[in-house]
Amino acid sequence: MMKKYDVIILGGGPAGLTAGIYASRAGLDCLVIEKGIFGGLITEAEVVENYPGFPEGISGLELGDLLHRQAVLHGVDTLIAEFMAFDVERDNKIVHTNEDDFIARAIIIALGSERKTLGVKGETELLGHGVSYCATCDAAFFRDQSVAVVGGGDVAVTEALHLTKFASKVVIIHRRDQLRATYVLQRKAFAQSKIEILWDTVVDSIEGIEQVKELKLKNLKTNQKSSLELDGVFISVGFKPNSDYFKVQLSLDSSGLIITDNRMETNLPGIFAAGDIRFGSTWQAISAAGDGATAAINAERYLSKLS
Amino acid sequence: MMKKYDVIILGGGPAGLTAGIYASRAGLDCLVIEKGIFGGLITEAEVVENYPGFPEGISGLELGDLLHRQAVLHGVDTLIAEFMAFDVERDNKIVHTNEDDFIARAIIIALGSERKTLGVKGETELLGHGVSYCATCDAAFFRDQSVAVVGGGDVAVTEALHLTKFASKVVIIHRRDQLRATYVLQRKAFAQSKIEILWDTVVDSIEGIEQVKELKLKNLKTNQKSSLELDGVFISVGFKPNSDYFKVQLSLDSSGLIITDNRMETNLPGIFAAGDIRFGSTWQAISAAGDGATAAINAERYLSKLS
Repeated sequence: MMKKYDVIILGGGPAGLTAGIYASRAGLDCLVIEKGIFGGLITEAEVVENYPGFPEGISGLELGDLLHRQAVLHGVDTLIAEFMAFDVERDNKIVHTNEDDFIARAIIIALGSERKTLGVKGETELLGHGVSYCATCDAAFFRDQSVAVVGGGDVAVTEALHLTKFASKVVIIHRRDQLRATYVLQRKAFAQSKIEILWDTVVDSIEGIEQVKELKLKNLKTNQKSSLELDGVFISVGFKPNSDYFKVQLSLDSSGLIITDNRMETNLPGIFAAGDIRFGSTWQAISAAGDGATAAINAERYLSKLS
Repeated sequence: MMKKYDVIILGGGPAGLTAGIYASRAGLDCLVIEKGIFGGLITEAEVVENYPGFPEGISGLELGDLLHRQAVLHGVDTLIAEFMAFDVERDNKIVHTNEDDFIARAIIIALGSERKTLGVKGETELLGHGVSYCATCDAAFFRDQSVAVVGGGDVAVTEALHLTKFASKVVIIHRRDQLRATYVLQRKAFAQSKIEILWDTVVDSIEGIEQVKELKLKNLKTNQKSSLELDGVFISVGFKPNSDYFKVQLSLDSSGLIITDNRMETNLPGIFAAGDIRFGSTWQAISAAGDGATAAINAERYLSKLS
């Protein structure tokens, strides 16, 4: 006999936990399933300065813990398990995890996106100590310092331009001989005296003890090795939404982000998406939390109209 | 000589202040203009239980103050003034207030919506003491108590259904002899034994000392007066977005909500809308804050593409 919930929320980051708070306060039986740590990606941030409500900043772990506690206080059930698949049977959805199977009347998908990594030495070890995946979040920590951005797409170049407002020097490191970013962004980057571009170049390793000190680089055309001293490196080689499970049933954009309407509902009735997995996301905790509330409110409306 | 800003934000509630935090952290010169109290409508809430990050709840005034302090700490300029009008001149926007005029390269409109009031005795005096405009926010305070909902539209009936999960009895008070709400919602309301409907009835006054005790009612067809003892009254007679200024230039829906794309941009380039004034809003502080972050990030992208 599978346990039945009004709403099952896949993912326990800011989007999922906020959806849980709202669903539970709406009197709905609600389960949040998370495979890792409640709070999600935000827990990796040493200091979160841009989540409104904490003027002096708050550690990502602490913020994740507050969100989790608030959800539990409001009556949300939580489970550490890995979501495997779901089936839709009329108004019921069957959710399969590696622990147990459940029935849900509505589902909110808040599994987030994973930032693509370089997979080089130093990248994990120095995360939060000079290595960052988010200039919007962390640029202000690098005032008058020297940084690099790895990547050549719209996001990478936007992040490089953003960083010029704080850093004294921004080196774009790109594996090809031209940027993929749109023309206007390229033109802005070329015109910005703080920006220097290293073409045909990849990062072999990120060096430093407790803090990023230098990058070991390789030119792909000449195979020449070099090194670059700096204070920070922003890795912007793309996002991978955790949406592989949904390819067949849901409408995704070309990068795998789930397409929703402005009520956060997907192309399948009663299945909602919120946060970094959703097309239009800005990959910010506050926006993900806002999405979660919107998804839960609309899930309640969906359920209240079912006979 | 008018002072020039990269971004001017109209409205200092959760949407506007969050937009300010993000714009300022992006290195943009940014002004938030508020005519009343920073924090906006949320400051009227005695306890906010559903803003993620505060498991034990927080007073609305305190939350508003935290948001304001955070914006100021990040370098946002703030001004108490009333927004009057704006003109668009090429890439510049002129913002007129009752205090001063300013030039902005981008504008974020976060002026919110005002809840329509009944305008009866006791409504203002007992706000937060049994009088509420938001069942999503406050229903949980009325467990096993007796409440009324004033109104007959989709939102009113949804709120009444929502309240049945907590309250022991829910009386819908409606001035007409049929509900405006959609058929499915009506059917659900009629089938719900906790809901009773008083037709052709208006509220003359809300009575109580420190806490709502009873409603004085009048039947519009018979002119008969009556009274109803209860613990709470939810007023759901509609919202009025503060968008009168924008009727001519911006696309609004029939109720005056500003229509945006999922980047929060309106039909005019460089003019964004966020929070309760935006079509698709759920009238929740957390969603408004999320909107504000999204609008500011996209305003920065807009500005970075201007030559």
